[in-house]
Amino acid sequence: MCSNLKTKIMMMTNSFKFTAHVNDELSDAVARERKTIGFYDLCDQDISPFLELASSVKQKNIVIIGIGGSALGASAVYRFLDLVRSFEKKLHILDTTDPLVLDSKLNSFDMEDAYYALISKSGGTIETIAVAKYIDSAITLNKENCVVITDSGSILEKFADSRGIQHFAIPANVGGRFSVLSSAGLVPLALVGVNIELLLEGARKVRDAFFNEQGYCHSLMQKATFYAQHANTYNINCLFSYSEVFREFNAWYVQLWGESLGKKQRHSELHVGLTPIGLIGPTDQHSFLQLIVDGKRDKSVTVIKIKEFENEMRVPDNSFEHLESMDIINSYSFAELINMQADSMMEALDSLDDIPLDIIEIESVNASEIGQLILYYELLTALVANMLDIDAYDQPGVEMGKIILKDKLQGR
Amino acid sequence: MCSNLKTKIMMMTNSFKFTAHVNDELSDAVARERKTIGFYDLCDQDISPFLELASSVKQKNIVIIGIGGSALGASAVYRFLDLVRSFEKKLHILDTTDPLVLDSKLNSFDMEDAYYALISKSGGTIETIAVAKYIDSAITLNKENCVVITDSGSILEKFADSRGIQHFAIPANVGGRFSVLSSAGLVPLALVGVNIELLLEGARKVRDAFFNEQGYCHSLMQKATFYAQHANTYNINCLFSYSEVFREFNAWYVQLWGESLGKKQRHSELHVGLTPIGLIGPTDQHSFLQLIVDGKRDKSVTVIKIKEFENEMRVPDNSFEHLESMDIINSYSFAELINMQADSMMEALDSLDDIPLDIIEIESVNASEIGQLILYYELLTALVANMLDIDAYDQPGVEMGKIILKDKLQGR
Repeated sequence: MCSNLKTKIMMMTNSFKFTAHVNDELSDAVARERKTIGFYDLCDQDISPFLELASSVKQKNIVIIGIGGSALGASAVYRFLDLVRSFEKKLHILDTTDPLVLDSKLNSFDMEDAYYALISKSGGTIETIAVAKYIDSAITLNKENCVVITDSGSILEKFADSRGIQHFAIPANVGGRFSVLSSAGLVPLALVGVNIELLLEGARKVRDAFFNEQGYCHSLMQKATFYAQHANTYNINCLFSYSEVFREFNAWYVQLWGESLGKKQRHSELHVGLTPIGLIGPTDQHSFLQLIVDGKRDKSVTVIKIKEFENEMRVPDNSFEHLESMDIINSYSFAELINMQADSMMEALDSLDDIPLDIIEIESVNASEIGQLILYYELLTALVANMLDIDAYDQPGVEMGKIILKDKLQGR
Repeated sequence: MCSNLKTKIMMMTNSFKFTAHVNDELSDAVARERKTIGFYDLCDQDISPFLELASSVKQKNIVIIGIGGSALGASAVYRFLDLVRSFEKKLHILDTTDPLVLDSKLNSFDMEDAYYALISKSGGTIETIAVAKYIDSAITLNKENCVVITDSGSILEKFADSRGIQHFAIPANVGGRFSVLSSAGLVPLALVGVNIELLLEGARKVRDAFFNEQGYCHSLMQKATFYAQHANTYNINCLFSYSEVFREFNAWYVQLWGESLGKKQRHSELHVGLTPIGLIGPTDQHSFLQLIVDGKRDKSVTVIKIKEFENEMRVPDNSFEHLESMDIINSYSFAELINMQADSMMEALDSLDDIPLDIIEIESVNASEIGQLILYYELLTALVANMLDIDAYDQPGVEMGKIILKDKLQGR
């Protein structure tokens, strides 16, 4: 199954057997786009200022005040690594106006022993400023406990200057949902102790493979072309990730895919869109799998597996009276078990023959692998957007609600 | 907006303005189904055995060993209430074979000061038995630290008897994803200190309104009919819940809706299915909203709002230099802010005129309200399934993967 097209790029692999005729102009379009869009080459930036800041911060709690693209990327990387590495510093994310969760989170760490990363690309994000004001009224944000990350020249940058708070710019040609490998993601990740050099190295591997290796590039273009050509039939793309470490990565993928690919077409003005769904295995085999197997044929499925969990937990070799039939699981490691569950689910789906299926395998849980996954999905998103004739990098649809909210706030 | 059809049932309300011609036979079909399907009348059961057990358990940590329908219901209710009530006893859920999360969770509580609810309807769920074996090898499951909840006569029940462990039956005519108000959900919830009487009272209100009040019944049938009749156009149903307290309720909804409505039709054998998506506001306005607004017109949206957050957190009346334009949020409570955000998003969606939209409002965060929501969604699911000519209560699609896994485990 899933094996006649296998592109191995360093550690991460992606295998699928659906095919599509690739138009070679697609790679030209992306090469042109690379000259103006910033995410492609973030892996080459100078990160020494981020590392310098990180080495000077002593607080135990790193707190992101930011929402959407200003929070999801750092969250994806941190949660991926933390379950295995258990960082000494803890990352807390304040990305809502929900008083119940704000109350609970603000009580979960010592606000005095915290360093705040205030992140807003535009500088005027309502949720972010509301939370910042709240925190400022309790502890006063200053150069000892705060860094600001925002567009160069924004009102938030000016605020930072007025208080002598250090600030980093998000490059103008890097959108929020593509900003995890810019200062927006790297600064909080460096602060908490993530090896951001390794993270960028992983991203660089995939970027270089795409632009330098014809086979890798063709494989990714084929996948993108298939998704775009079947956007009306398979309008839902499920990412079925076999480990809890991917929960926030799934959320990052949902934003990247949904917000980039849900657009009016440039030329036709038609509404197009591919709907992302993040699933965690094996748990969601008991929730969502039935719908994939027997439901309407409107879904593709990508499985992500970890080859080496580097964990020795094992089902003991004990027998429960009357449950002897279950002894078939005895002595397997849980890592073996979860991967056999993934394989079994894929074989079952593959046998149906009308559900597009592919598998991504990463070697282990480390910063390079998540860096690879990030760039892989950013490239795939850019390719699909090109095929669909849409702008992957704007989000005009969310403006109307913001305008209505401003009117309401002013009592109009 | 959203107001020409408003059915108020006690506290919870649901308003929408899309219409559909309701076939009166639908209510007859449901009345017939009620005679054989168990979830409708769980709210009338005798809960004194559950309360008796709860009063005798002294351990601080209540641990569910169960997956899918054996975990999601209790999790939805507990997480909904815990952010506000902060229960003295903590609920932990072991619903995976992922060694990384199992390791982390088992280190997060004292295994000796824990009481285990071992829950599996069939009695032979691989994930559940694997985790139970692991725990048993560390602390030995016995009548002092464990209760078993399973089908009457299952091999797991016999195991419980062999060790003198108390067990409760899940009624044979109540499926896993409809079992939150049976012993499967009520026992762990009672153990942790949830007012399960109030929970059932909420459910009873909705059940009685549906079967006794023509207006309420008609409204729900109209909504179900609309979803079923437009299943091919609007094949995605987004539940946009405005508070983090709904995160696990969303997950419960995803299982209920997806696993019940993703089926082959009884008569045509055609694959049909409605795809559930759970979103949390305002956070996911910065992730998924763009796709709803500008993407393909394949989504309906239901918003859930809490009228009274019973929380006084307020944006302080302070001004940030250079950010004076943001002072329009000053002095609003966060509860006002989040609800204005919900209203603004709904007004924006409503103005588009081609996205089916409705709103559910609950009074506050308490057990009765979540009980109402649970029965509301179970009824809606049953109605849509009837309209789609499918069996809401089976899950044949997940069997194939289980058979393949068993073969793999036995090395075949």
